[in-house]
Amino acid sequence: MRIDTQRAAELLRSADDILLLCHRDPDGDSYGSAMALFDVLTAMGRRARVGCVSPFPKNLDFLDRPMPDFTPRFVAAIDCASPSMLGDGAERERRVDLCIDHHPTNPLYAVETLLVDYAATGEAVYEVILALDAPLSPYCATALFTALSADTGGFRYANTTTRTLRVAAYLMESGADFNLIRQRLFESKSRGMIAVEAAALSNVRYYAGGRIAVIAATLDIMGRSGADETELEGLASKPLQIDGVDVGITLKERSDGSIRVSVRSTEAADAAVICARFAGGGHIRAAGCRVWDGIEEAERRLVAAAREQLAC
Amino acid sequence: MRIDTQRAAELLRSADDILLLCHRDPDGDSYGSAMALFDVLTAMGRRARVGCVSPFPKNLDFLDRPMPDFTPRFVAAIDCASPSMLGDGAERERRVDLCIDHHPTNPLYAVETLLVDYAATGEAVYEVILALDAPLSPYCATALFTALSADTGGFRYANTTTRTLRVAAYLMESGADFNLIRQRLFESKSRGMIAVEAAALSNVRYYAGGRIAVIAATLDIMGRSGADETELEGLASKPLQIDGVDVGITLKERSDGSIRVSVRSTEAADAAVICARFAGGGHIRAAGCRVWDGIEEAERRLVAAAREQLAC
Repeated sequence: MRIDTQRAAELLRSADDILLLCHRDPDGDSYGSAMALFDVLTAMGRRARVGCVSPFPKNLDFLDRPMPDFTPRFVAAIDCASPSMLGDGAERERRVDLCIDHHPTNPLYAVETLLVDYAATGEAVYEVILALDAPLSPYCATALFTALSADTGGFRYANTTTRTLRVAAYLMESGADFNLIRQRLFESKSRGMIAVEAAALSNVRYYAGGRIAVIAATLDIMGRSGADETELEGLASKPLQIDGVDVGITLKERSDGSIRVSVRSTEAADAAVICARFAGGGHIRAAGCRVWDGIEEAERRLVAAAREQLAC
Repeated sequence: MRIDTQRAAELLRSADDILLLCHRDPDGDSYGSAMALFDVLTAMGRRARVGCVSPFPKNLDFLDRPMPDFTPRFVAAIDCASPSMLGDGAERERRVDLCIDHHPTNPLYAVETLLVDYAATGEAVYEVILALDAPLSPYCATALFTALSADTGGFRYANTTTRTLRVAAYLMESGADFNLIRQRLFESKSRGMIAVEAAALSNVRYYAGGRIAVIAATLDIMGRSGADETELEGLASKPLQIDGVDVGITLKERSDGSIRVSVRSTEAADAAVICARFAGGGHIRAAGCRVWDGIEEAERRLVAAAREQLAC
């Protein structure tokens, strides 16, 4: 069932022992939004905890806080587009009381879902926090600013709206540590990550007359560079930055044999449709999926799906 | 003489046949701010023209407009930190009636100077336009948004303030073509430019235990890639993105034998002081200069100056 901001606030106000779930391979929007709610709920005297099947990204460790241990009586999924984003085993089957999300592909798997079409789930969480009439601590402002900044590439992506910019200004005024956030999100690449970027960019493959571009972070490149999988978040935006490219595909080879695929697109194609072919999802301009049949075959299949989208 | 926003508006209101000068190698802030004023002054019935000793960047050609020809009776320098930024010959000696700028190193060479400490000169021009009581056309909003976006790296750099974000939100609401601007500023790299980035990033030189990082776009790299000098704007931000780097130095070898140097710094160093050693200038976190004695010697001298700033 879809609900509005007020109802989401009511649910949280009347809940306790709240588990806030982030999606697998959590990004700044999922983690920042969940930690902002954790901060507010804790200040309201509720017991809350943030959980995830994957480790939280190293570059966001400035948001880490000690978590209490308890058996949850209320489960909220934050920025989780589908049950498969909660994990692979029993996690997918668990009851989710509330989902706050901005992915249009969300199948409304939770009992109640606040689904918005904002750039970041953090914008919806900001409105829920306003509706809770809770004071916004500088920590909470920092967590929400991180959420907005992460999902808009620091207000550079097409999903940025006047609301995003206004909320960002308000959060900055409320004490969000802008300099820390921007440094950790955009200016803390390891030397290894710089080497991965250089290697990936020196081997761009173009298809469909340059309208499709593919880059890859192979295990070989990762091994030589010493970079960490959780550092690769920013890589996905690179191929679409190239002139004339309408579909940018980034392949990340993982040690479990899977290929994590990120697709970015201009108005000319729907990234979510391309990824839905491989049981993935996301947004019209930014989506993801996982493929299991090797990096070359992954490239072949993704390029074929992208060609179909571009009708070329 | 330093003046305020009202006085700058008065000067422009009572002037005609106005030449709006951009600085050499103009960036989005200088060109966007000048074109915004051109648009407003023209709508107010004034004759105005935007001029520069260098060509305007190709990626900003969406702001180009036909310019009338006339003998100027009023000269305004926009975002020009010093007379040397106006050109090399007679340009440096010319009378400048009004300067609107945000570089703290500005020696007040104009008859009257509106000097602000904003992230972009575009923010000051926005306030001047408000003071002129002139309507803001969508074109003007686009030009000013380009100015703000260019000098803040799309609201990612440390100079971004709540004012910057609020003005940006207002401009977006006034019809600024955000999607066009972000595509042309951040997502229109030529294949050649991607090759330059890959080559530069695969050969980062570290000094002072990794606190200084140097990259270079040599004539050799430029020749092989086919990239254009005016495309290199974004390169300067790369070395400072590396973890642990406090001074990032980017060297661009030019066909006239000069080396164009860009310096970016964290709180640990003053980029403007480093560049002042080589008759350059700019901001505390972002400055530039030109050096004439070859790329290796340029690197040696800049690294020495950076070490001195870091006291290491």
